[in-house]
Amino acid sequence: MRRIALTISYDGTLYGGWQRQQNAPTIQETIENAIEKLFGEKVVVMGSGRTDAGVHAVGQIGVFDLEHTIPCDRLVLALNANLPDDIRILLAKETKADFNPQFDAKKKTYHYTFYDGTIMPPHLRLYAVPTEYQTNWDLVEETLHCFEGTMDFKACCASGSAALTSVKGTVRTIYEAKLIRNEKEKLYTISICGNGFLYNMVRIIAGTVLEVGKGALPIEAVKKALVDGDRAGLGQTAPAKGLTLYSVEYEEM
Amino acid sequence: MRRIALTISYDGTLYGGWQRQQNAPTIQETIENAIEKLFGEKVVVMGSGRTDAGVHAVGQIGVFDLEHTIPCDRLVLALNANLPDDIRILLAKETKADFNPQFDAKKKTYHYTFYDGTIMPPHLRLYAVPTEYQTNWDLVEETLHCFEGTMDFKACCASGSAALTSVKGTVRTIYEAKLIRNEKEKLYTISICGNGFLYNMVRIIAGTVLEVGKGALPIEAVKKALVDGDRAGLGQTAPAKGLTLYSVEYEEM
Repeated sequence: MRRIALTISYDGTLYGGWQRQQNAPTIQETIENAIEKLFGEKVVVMGSGRTDAGVHAVGQIGVFDLEHTIPCDRLVLALNANLPDDIRILLAKETKADFNPQFDAKKKTYHYTFYDGTIMPPHLRLYAVPTEYQTNWDLVEETLHCFEGTMDFKACCASGSAALTSVKGTVRTIYEAKLIRNEKEKLYTISICGNGFLYNMVRIIAGTVLEVGKGALPIEAVKKALVDGDRAGLGQTAPAKGLTLYSVEYEEM
Repeated sequence: MRRIALTISYDGTLYGGWQRQQNAPTIQETIENAIEKLFGEKVVVMGSGRTDAGVHAVGQIGVFDLEHTIPCDRLVLALNANLPDDIRILLAKETKADFNPQFDAKKKTYHYTFYDGTIMPPHLRLYAVPTEYQTNWDLVEETLHCFEGTMDFKACCASGSAALTSVKGTVRTIYEAKLIRNEKEKLYTISICGNGFLYNMVRIIAGTVLEVGKGALPIEAVKKALVDGDRAGLGQTAPAKGLTLYSVEYEEM
């Protein structure tokens, strides 16, 4: 039995998120079904974390145990030949028997993309969220830095989330929160790298910095809400389709 | 009554092409229905040309006559609010009563996009075609220049096309056929600008230059097929999804 780590890219548009559920097709289930079809083995593919319905990934990590001895490079080809083209396996790698893609993750990076033009180009409609108003991107960038550091991110957590009452709590470290500007295509991508994220955290940060950039929320109110742990003091949760799980880093994989 | 010219962008994935037909939803029909819903006027939207099922557009031109006096900027907003988000009206402009988007077109530019990596990124899957093998892009570029100039493009026309027996014939002028390289994203876009195109012409050119770039077809064979008007001497017709009608130019619109 080998433990195999997959690097997975997907367009989440047509899925009910990563995690297997009753009411919608999911990324996890689709990959598990392809593995069962190929090798006759029922496996569970553990993700580095869930992604919500409509959220995309460039570098999700999924781990499972396989009896079959197919080499990893051929496994990639076989899986891609048996998956829909909105899910692609980029890499397969044999890893330690106790490797856990969620608990062993050291850093995760999410991207959140806004489109800052007046009319959303059709080919971007599933991957970017329109700003709808003139946005001050320098101010967005400045606001992003408020989220950097180790602090209690209770204000950036969807109400009802398990983290609010869990032993682990709501303290996280954000190593970097920056803005990537593609002015030619009017795409502005927020890139946030941290040691862990609360439920909806990146979408709450994205919604908040955009409101500041549009002049709808003062940056001082954001700083205060972070100190107070006050979700209501931040902006709205931005839509799922703008979010991409960009990469997950491990000390060893 | 005013004649109005629309600049239209669309993702053709879910449509049976531009032109109204029985068996599938089309771009033309979808826009005509939105106009009828908004203004109660049954109109025909004439395109600058048909695009096939799965073909996209960035700057298709569609023209229709409207009794309603809505200003053009408000017409854009109203149409976009009543169209699915894979069709966007970029501009509306009042034009001459006898303006014909097909016959008055002076230049059209098509783009055809290849992805030159080993695994197609999910977010590009509907807009780019995988090369599947190592491609010599310098050779692709050199081959593209063979298609520049005024000549009989009979070899670049799908068999059975009306152009083969029409009075207008198969002579066209290609002003420019060039390669746009985006090496970071492994996207290679063929851009072809001409005074008119035969049925499947750009897809046949794209399929041909790719085969040359892969070493499957000698450039001399391409030159000979063009002189001989021999469709069989060129490459396969490349898939629809890589093709985008990029722009249509008029002396006056």
